[in-house]
Amino acid sequence: MVHWREAEMKKAYPLEKVYGLLEPGPVILLSTQRKGKANVMTLSWHVMLDFEPPLVGCVVSDRNYTFELLRDTQECVINIPTEELAKKVVACGNASGRTLDKFKKYGLTAQPAATVEAPLIAECYANLECRAVDPRMVEHYCFFVLEVVQAWIDPATKWPRTMHHRGMGEFMIAGKRLKLRSRMK
Amino acid sequence: MVHWREAEMKKAYPLEKVYGLLEPGPVILLSTQRKGKANVMTLSWHVMLDFEPPLVGCVVSDRNYTFELLRDTQECVINIPTEELAKKVVACGNASGRTLDKFKKYGLTAQPAATVEAPLIAECYANLECRAVDPRMVEHYCFFVLEVVQAWIDPATKWPRTMHHRGMGEFMIAGKRLKLRSRMK
Repeated sequence: MVHWREAEMKKAYPLEKVYGLLEPGPVILLSTQRKGKANVMTLSWHVMLDFEPPLVGCVVSDRNYTFELLRDTQECVINIPTEELAKKVVACGNASGRTLDKFKKYGLTAQPAATVEAPLIAECYANLECRAVDPRMVEHYCFFVLEVVQAWIDPATKWPRTMHHRGMGEFMIAGKRLKLRSRMK
Repeated sequence: MVHWREAEMKKAYPLEKVYGLLEPGPVILLSTQRKGKANVMTLSWHVMLDFEPPLVGCVVSDRNYTFELLRDTQECVINIPTEELAKKVVACGNASGRTLDKFKKYGLTAQPAATVEAPLIAECYANLECRAVDPRMVEHYCFFVLEVVQAWIDPATKWPRTMHHRGMGEFMIAGKRLKLRSRMK
C-alpha cells in the first residue's frame, strides 16, 4: 500500500540516517496536538542522543504552550523548514498557540502523520514522527527524550537551505558543501 | 590585569551570549586534560540547556578516550573551529588520543585556560571553558551537563564559517546571513 505521503512525493526516510538531518543544528518546527487541536513552536535546542533507533533530546520550556501538549500526549513531530519559510518560522516563535491557531494564521498545512496524532507540516522538507520515551529530565531541564518512529523526506530537496539561529532573530542559512574522507559516522 | 588571551587578541565573551555560538549546531572540538596529558575530540551532539549561566548538554560516547578524561576531571573546553581547520577536525574525529598526541600530530596549539586545566585550542575562533555539573544522565546517555564558566572569542571573526556535519564526512559550511524582526531571544 502506498502511504498518502508517498503519493504526495514525500518518501519514507531510513531511520538510521535521521542523525544527518538534525546534527547540523537546523531550526525546527515542533508540532503537537491534543484533543484535535494542533499547535506548532519554533526551537533550536535539540540534540541527537543515539543513532538507531534515533533518539533526540529536545528542550521545550514549561512557559510554552507546547510543553503541556507534549507532556500530556507524549507525541510530537519534528518538522525541518528551509529558508523559504523563514518569516513563518519567526512568526511561530513569536506567538503562543494558547490564543492562536498558528496553522491557520500563518498558512501552514497540517497533514496526518502515520503513527502519531500530531500533524506533519507539509511545507517542511523533512518530518520526523516522535514519541517521548524518558520523562526523567523533564523536571530539571524541560528536556524531553524523543524516539523518532517514522521519518519522511522530500527527495527533490538535495541540499536543504536550513536555517540556523544565532540569536535575536539572526540566522545563518546553510551554505556550501564540503566532503572529506572520514571513517566517522 | 590583562589576561594573556586578551594580549593575543581574543576577548572575554559575555556568558549570556554563548547560546548564539552553539545553537546553530557547529561541529566542536572538545579538549580535556588529565595529569598533564591533553586530548581533543570532534563532536556534533551538543545542545543548549539554559541561557545563564549557560548550560550545555553534550554526548561523549563511553567508547571515546575523552569520556574517561571528562568523567575523571569534570572539566573540558568547547572549542569552535571554522572551515580553515576542516582537515584537522576530521583527523581528530578519526583517531584516538589513547595512542596519539593529537595536538602534536595535527599541529593544534594548546594554550592555558583561565579556570580549568583542559587547554584552549588557539586556532579556534571561540573557546568555552566548562565544568560538568550534573552526572545523572551520564550512565544512560553518556550525556554530560556542562556549565560554561568562561568564554573567549576572536573579535575579528564577524561571520564564522563554522562546519556542520551531515554524516559520513559531509559538512555544510555556514552560509549567508538572514536577519528578521523577532522578539525571540
